[in-house]
Amino acid sequence: MIGDEQSIVVSTLSKVRLAFVNDVVAAELRRLRDSIDNMDAALVHLLAERFKITQQVGELKARHGLSPADPDREAHQIARLRALAADAKLDPEFAEKFLNFVVAEVVRHHEAAVRNSSVAT
Amino acid sequence: MIGDEQSIVVSTLSKVRLAFVNDVVAAELRRLRDSIDNMDAALVHLLAERFKITQQVGELKARHGLSPADPDREAHQIARLRALAADAKLDPEFAEKFLNFVVAEVVRHHEAAVRNSSVAT
Repeated sequence: MIGDEQSIVVSTLSKVRLAFVNDVVAAELRRLRDSIDNMDAALVHLLAERFKITQQVGELKARHGLSPADPDREAHQIARLRALAADAKLDPEFAEKFLNFVVAEVVRHHEAAVRNSSVAT
Repeated sequence: MIGDEQSIVVSTLSKVRLAFVNDVVAAELRRLRDSIDNMDAALVHLLAERFKITQQVGELKARHGLSPADPDREAHQIARLRALAADAKLDPEFAEKFLNFVVAEVVRHHEAAVRNSSVAT
């Protein structure tokens, strides 16, 4: 009987410990995810601002007959972002892929703007 | 002779005006590009921090035998980012593509970490 009671106590303590560990892990996961969510909100707002500015660049270039593409500027941007990424311990390859991903969206915006203005005239 | 002088003056004024416009446009383009560069630096640093946190999430999950994927969490993240994007006048489709792009890199990091730990043991 004492053996049974002991095993019940051990099993209960083990369950309490597991529940405690689960609570601690869940709280830690929540804390980390809250930070990820804050950063994602900041990233989305920065991207929104960035597109507002590239839209202004597109309009300025169109108004003054400047070419939309500028290979020298792009090469400089890539080199700079790779260096910044390396400094921040982010994979420079990823930083370059990221810039290409964003620039592809900028090009898509510009093409849509040109299509819309062709429709308007 | 007076006609010649007049046309020289007109041509010179036109060149001066063009040079002035070019200077103004170049200065405006530089100002906008400086802002893009500042935002890109901020984006790269935020992404570096985000990967530090997802690395902690990956380690926490691995340590406690939790599944790396969490479809409910991902669905919530997508819905939230789309709403934030719409508020910030950013295309929600792009916000979702952006999250998928970043998550694909997180998965790549986790897979590399698993490969490295398999090599180590």
